[in-house]
Amino acid sequence: MRGKIETIGVLTSGGDSPGMNAAIRAVTRAGICNGFTVKAIYRGFDGLVNDEVKQFTTENVSGIILQGGTILKSARSKEFVTTEGREKAWKTIEKEKIDALVVIGGNGSLTGAMNFAREHDICCIGLPGTIDNDLYGTDTTIGYDTTLNTIVECVDRIRDTAQSHERIFFVEVMGRDAGFLAQNAAIACGAEAAIIPEWSTDVDQLAQFMERGIRKSKKSCIVIVSESPKCGAIYYAERVKKEFPNYDVRISILGHLQRGGRPSAHDRILASRTGVGAVEAIMQGQRNVMIGIRNNEVVYVPLSEAIRSDKPFDKKLISVLDELSI
Amino acid sequence: MRGKIETIGVLTSGGDSPGMNAAIRAVTRAGICNGFTVKAIYRGFDGLVNDEVKQFTTENVSGIILQGGTILKSARSKEFVTTEGREKAWKTIEKEKIDALVVIGGNGSLTGAMNFAREHDICCIGLPGTIDNDLYGTDTTIGYDTTLNTIVECVDRIRDTAQSHERIFFVEVMGRDAGFLAQNAAIACGAEAAIIPEWSTDVDQLAQFMERGIRKSKKSCIVIVSESPKCGAIYYAERVKKEFPNYDVRISILGHLQRGGRPSAHDRILASRTGVGAVEAIMQGQRNVMIGIRNNEVVYVPLSEAIRSDKPFDKKLISVLDELSI
Amino acid sequence: MRGKIETIGVLTSGGDSPGMNAAIRAVTRAGICNGFTVKAIYRGFDGLVNDEVKQFTTENVSGIILQGGTILKSARSKEFVTTEGREKAWKTIEKEKIDALVVIGGNGSLTGAMNFAREHDICCIGLPGTIDNDLYGTDTTIGYDTTLNTIVECVDRIRDTAQSHERIFFVEVMGRDAGFLAQNAAIACGAEAAIIPEWSTDVDQLAQFMERGIRKSKKSCIVIVSESPKCGAIYYAERVKKEFPNYDVRISILGHLQRGGRPSAHDRILASRTGVGAVEAIMQGQRNVMIGIRNNEVVYVPLSEAIRSDKPFDKKLISVLDELSI
Amino acid sequence: MRGKIETIGVLTSGGDSPGMNAAIRAVTRAGICNGFTVKAIYRGFDGLVNDEVKQFTTENVSGIILQGGTILKSARSKEFVTTEGREKAWKTIEKEKIDALVVIGGNGSLTGAMNFAREHDICCIGLPGTIDNDLYGTDTTIGYDTTLNTIVECVDRIRDTAQSHERIFFVEVMGRDAGFLAQNAAIACGAEAAIIPEWSTDVDQLAQFMERGIRKSKKSCIVIVSESPKCGAIYYAERVKKEFPNYDVRISILGHLQRGGRPSAHDRILASRTGVGAVEAIMQGQRNVMIGIRNNEVVYVPLSEAIRSDKPFDKKLISVLDELSI
Repeated sequence: MRGKIETIGVLTSGGDSPGMNAAIRAVTRAGICNGFTVKAIYRGFDGLVNDEVKQFTTENVSGIILQGGTILKSARSKEFVTTEGREKAWKTIEKEKIDALVVIGGNGSLTGAMNFAREHDICCIGLPGTIDNDLYGTDTTIGYDTTLNTIVECVDRIRDTAQSHERIFFVEVMGRDAGFLAQNAAIACGAEAAIIPEWSTDVDQLAQFMERGIRKSKKSCIVIVSESPKCGAIYYAERVKKEFPNYDVRISILGHLQRGGRPSAHDRILASRTGVGAVEAIMQGQRNVMIGIRNNEVVYVPLSEAIRSDKPFDKKLISVLDELSI
Repeated sequence: MRGKIETIGVLTSGGDSPGMNAAIRAVTRAGICNGFTVKAIYRGFDGLVNDEVKQFTTENVSGIILQGGTILKSARSKEFVTTEGREKAWKTIEKEKIDALVVIGGNGSLTGAMNFAREHDICCIGLPGTIDNDLYGTDTTIGYDTTLNTIVECVDRIRDTAQSHERIFFVEVMGRDAGFLAQNAAIACGAEAAIIPEWSTDVDQLAQFMERGIRKSKKSCIVIVSESPKCGAIYYAERVKKEFPNYDVRISILGHLQRGGRPSAHDRILASRTGVGAVEAIMQGQRNVMIGIRNNEVVYVPLSEAIRSDKPFDKKLISVLDELSI
Repeated sequence: MRGKIETIGVLTSGGDSPGMNAAIRAVTRAGICNGFTVKAIYRGFDGLVNDEVKQFTTENVSGIILQGGTILKSARSKEFVTTEGREKAWKTIEKEKIDALVVIGGNGSLTGAMNFAREHDICCIGLPGTIDNDLYGTDTTIGYDTTLNTIVECVDRIRDTAQSHERIFFVEVMGRDAGFLAQNAAIACGAEAAIIPEWSTDVDQLAQFMERGIRKSKKSCIVIVSESPKCGAIYYAERVKKEFPNYDVRISILGHLQRGGRPSAHDRILASRTGVGAVEAIMQGQRNVMIGIRNNEVVYVPLSEAIRSDKPFDKKLISVLDELSI
Repeated sequence: MRGKIETIGVLTSGGDSPGMNAAIRAVTRAGICNGFTVKAIYRGFDGLVNDEVKQFTTENVSGIILQGGTILKSARSKEFVTTEGREKAWKTIEKEKIDALVVIGGNGSLTGAMNFAREHDICCIGLPGTIDNDLYGTDTTIGYDTTLNTIVECVDRIRDTAQSHERIFFVEVMGRDAGFLAQNAAIACGAEAAIIPEWSTDVDQLAQFMERGIRKSKKSCIVIVSESPKCGAIYYAERVKKEFPNYDVRISILGHLQRGGRPSAHDRILASRTGVGAVEAIMQGQRNVMIGIRNNEVVYVPLSEAIRSDKPFDKKLISVLDELSI
């Protein structure tokens, strides 16, 4: 390991999430405030491979706390997954004299960071930047709260038209392999049901939910469906249409608009606190940890633990939705 | 024609639009305030056919000015297009002693109202309730401004992610056969191009726009596409992907969320003024007119003129977008 | 203690907070779903004193999850603080055969509930309904997240004009005796400083912050001030104006608009989960507890503990703001 | 008059309004697109006096269409109202070779522009940039629609708490000497009354409105008051409190947050179209006109006419509010 850490590199990687800019700002300002040089790396790990690096002052991050997306751009690097790519990346690290690397991203990006830190003597700190909330060890991830609010706003709108026309809507939301967004959005929207990867739903069950809703003179019904290559909103809508031809069934796939937008207060604070926490962790000699917030406290989670795929899903949320949609 | 008008019926018909509730409230309160009995008809013309009618007091419309959708429900009636259906509807009119009928809806609904008034001795007043802005004789229609703002909000969000990942987005918006929403949204979002029914766009032109955008180091690009059974966002995206395989092209179909949501200030005021205007028109003995606002004045437009399909589209908007997306 | 609990009463009390309606809905539906009769009490404890009670069905709470305020109305009862008032309230409880009482409110309301439960044999369950976040034992209170977002939206707007005119703004926010709203809003808005009850700020310090901001060519400056009878925004603005006559100093007191609005996703979920939790607690024979969420788990907090005035304030938030406003 | 116009200067002046940035962008891009050099002037007329000028490329205005405030800063120049100040300004014009000046601002700013054009041989074009909507000859001004929506959002929130606590609220809004914002916001919010400069309201009338509202079991009441040095919200609230001590009367002064925020679709389009129109007017040899939109058409209004203080206020809006608040 090299000696004293003087220069911190920061990058965003993978799917963008609202609050990434607030995190970049926090790492930059806390870094400079504590005497470090801060270098921004563009386009995720691609920027390391191709040496797209720029030194940042506090002004470079002025006014970005409220902007969605990431001013550093993001990408899923194809080269960085190869050994050659990572060698080129390491050359950039050496050339730019970067002693510690803060990676803001989701599961895949933190895995990349962990593997890089195994091959090379570098302090890698992760920040949980993903809308999917699927990183272990932090109550929420940066972007999750904003996306949840965006979904809820969209479904509030869809409910207006669903009720006016007495229709059944299947609304597909993001979440990768995790049902956090779908299940919690369903509770927050007062939806009739959620279809999530953690819990199998057959069409019979679904029919039950809908009949219950429709019997109760609600006459319209909203089902939130977690995205899935095979069993998304279209799949379920088609099956329901087939078995219940009387229903007026519609589909809405929210898509990419879920990623953008001004971050919520929660995400700005989460990004600011974990960003400051990343610089503190570096000063304390921490290595290869993700900074999270648990129970309102900043915590360090080993990267290997953070990317475990089994972030626990609270099964009680299923019965909460079930009881409240009667 | 019957004698003094004592009872006003009100219904919403066709696709729902934000501000319909504000219009129902205005007709109800202005009606009651001027000594009329007001009867609400549910589910559009179906409610006339099936006698779903309820007398309203001012309390029935309390607090609805800010709600999207329509508390009277809406539908596209299959029975009302038949002579038998309209006979049943007329029976309801007679039974409920409705002397004047206010129909809040778009092109198809106002056409239905006009035809009904030709067959039967009834005063029909139209209010322009449609997000498409395709009714002749009124500067805007109730719901158009809200939907335009909803689209702009969504595209602002999509731009965050488009820029972060340097992608080309084709965003499909509503508008039936009219490009008002697409063209104006494109100007308001700072999009690179709009594809509208009023103006043919070939892929070569599109490529030019995009290359111009990308060359200028903007590196991301947003094209707003008016919905169309054949040539929607998917059609253009596929063609561009084929001819420019290097671009990272994505599609977003905004869909039904464009219809809902709290009405904007503009739509609430438009609905309130035209709703009051409808009652005044009835008091003045007007028949078969749509109430619109032109040049900030309430105007009466004969129904036959309002539904003309050729609401003029300002071609200058195309060059405005063109000059500003350089 | 009486035998089996059959009827649950529910009321909202004290200052209203967004999410109270979602909590009423959750208690009502979870209650009915589990076989209880649910009776709604209007105007807080006044409704107990004056017997303003109405049995609720699931339809009574339809569509309210997204409404701000409280459909049950709220009040700070003057009679209920007297022994006579509480006797009258008890008579209502007996007459209406209410076996368990769910009180949704803040510190004062839960204190009232606790005292009532000491005098009479009744199961009182509290739900943390306050924007101030000052109840002990729950990570956040119902309404806090929404209000925080409302403040952040307002300050985002104020920053636009502050920067355009290069002004200093003192923005006063709610919070009663607690600085949670002010401190977290300051972090989320990228404000230059926060003045909170938990931390004394003299004008010299303030001047330092502002000079730092202004020197750095930021030229505008936003200070968030927690409401206070003596030392609110006006007090600090006047003092700064006096000592630094060159600054263009402005005041904005956000006031009551902080209380209303559609609840955020977080508050709707918090209200739904704790509302369901209240019914479960009743079924488990719990008495005199507040239902909170800690570390993403529903918890029971004795009322006496919940109302303790010393909910810990994380001093680290002060240094987070300090480092990030450089 | 000098020969061919080659360089266009652009500045924002007076109180900032949302959409000013969209106007700057439109003037810059349309200018460059048509072969002009575009120079931005900072801090309003002060920037002319002090030679704060910078040449703009299309990139300088990238991404600003959706930002509130003005990137050019704004000010009310004390020097420019003096002859010496204007002489210094003219020197800057000559030095920077500015042939035409686009001034984005309200009444005072356009008056300044007109006076400058009388003293010096320069083509001055005005764009109506003010939230007050008090410029003659254009249906709306840039910023008015956004501010109206901001007020409506705030009052929607206040209504939640007003209804929950059954209170009377006096909400003070901006508007300088014009009641457009107050009257239209009152209609859009479903307020019980509006107090505007164009129409005198005594407390007796007000009491009538409120009693009517309260009698009707509405029990809460919202009055929108146009700002006024003497007779603002505080004045009326105090008088009502005195005469009706039983009412729970509250005041909310919305203040500066009304100026900021992302511009609405309407304002972005208005700013874009009039910005392009300004460049066209220059190319057509127009001088000393304001570009407005009337009846959906771009129009040229002589500056002397635009600043006339008597923009007509539609008295019918008063009866619309009156009928709808029963």
